[in-house]
Amino acid sequence: MRVVVPFAAETPKTRLSAVLDPEERREFARVMLDDVLAILEEAGTDPEVLATADTEIPVPVTVDDRPLTEAVNAVLGGSDGSVAVVMADLALLTPGVVDRLLEADGDVVVAPGRGGGTNALVVRHPDFRVDYHGVSYLDHLRAAREVGATVRTVDSHRLATDVDEPADLAELLIHGEGEARAWLESAGFELAIDEGRVGVERDEG
Amino acid sequence: MRVVVPFAAETPKTRLSAVLDPEERREFARVMLDDVLAILEEAGTDPEVLATADTEIPVPVTVDDRPLTEAVNAVLGGSDGSVAVVMADLALLTPGVVDRLLEADGDVVVAPGRGGGTNALVVRHPDFRVDYHGVSYLDHLRAAREVGATVRTVDSHRLATDVDEPADLAELLIHGEGEARAWLESAGFELAIDEGRVGVERDEG
Repeated sequence: MRVVVPFAAETPKTRLSAVLDPEERREFARVMLDDVLAILEEAGTDPEVLATADTEIPVPVTVDDRPLTEAVNAVLGGSDGSVAVVMADLALLTPGVVDRLLEADGDVVVAPGRGGGTNALVVRHPDFRVDYHGVSYLDHLRAAREVGATVRTVDSHRLATDVDEPADLAELLIHGEGEARAWLESAGFELAIDEGRVGVERDEG
Repeated sequence: MRVVVPFAAETPKTRLSAVLDPEERREFARVMLDDVLAILEEAGTDPEVLATADTEIPVPVTVDDRPLTEAVNAVLGGSDGSVAVVMADLALLTPGVVDRLLEADGDVVVAPGRGGGTNALVVRHPDFRVDYHGVSYLDHLRAAREVGATVRTVDSHRLATDVDEPADLAELLIHGEGEARAWLESAGFELAIDEGRVGVERDEG
């Protein structure tokens, strides 16, 4: 199965601008990508990257500067067999979770992100196409039914947690096991508990 | 296995006070509890409620007005066999998820909530005790190891999503299948997409 990881190489992670400057956001996005690729390899796959711009990465890279939906649909249209699409900011990924995703039955397998996005997909039906706008999880369930594809969902907190807002950093500090968590800690972030709610605080010292 | 659902009968869900008034919060909390109990029964268990005050519920109720940690530990200390503790605001619960929880191996099984809480537990070790303060998920992993218990975690978005903040209402509208979702819709809530982020808005009409 082809395993494709879309990666926004330029100005990534703008929702983290309150806590990370542009250069840090680029670094952090790249460290998360490297974690995701390493876990996908550990799970026995040969991941490739679909990047918006030329990027130095030690796996095959396709550059496509179109929006995510169009770029992923070009991959789906140009593939003969199954394709998995796994987001580059799933920093809580583990090999076991990858197995759950890839081994799930269904012509289309969808892993919802928190907020109704689609964090990972397996596509085994030739007519299914993606649309990442809006509540794409629900749209993808509908689109799969419309082309007559069977659908399964994967219920995973690790797959549901794409790291793109400050609150997500707490999840990475709680559950992360890779370099992205280490990067965050070395940047001075730690868990903070305020009135029973868990967040992060940054030591700038 | 005993399956215990703690329920704060008075002034529940204060973090939803920006979008629901006190009477609505009481109603909504109760509808979620009823959903959770129904799903637990559908999964073949006989749930009981551990409530902070006397409550009309058609399952066995123990009233204990102490804080959650003390009340749950009294249950664990007074039980001979296995005990599951499932939070009353897991409105995304399904019978399949309950099966995953109850069938997981381990002397202690922990399902983390988003933010590092503990949304569900299975305790099969006589010396394990809970402490729900702070990042209780990590504390419970540590506490289990300290009493020599084997630990397993359950990676589930549905178990990770306890509904107690406005953003969680979006999850309920996306994934919910029970009465709590219907209650929310009849109260005028619907999904709203703002700059690519999914939230909820309320039609007061």
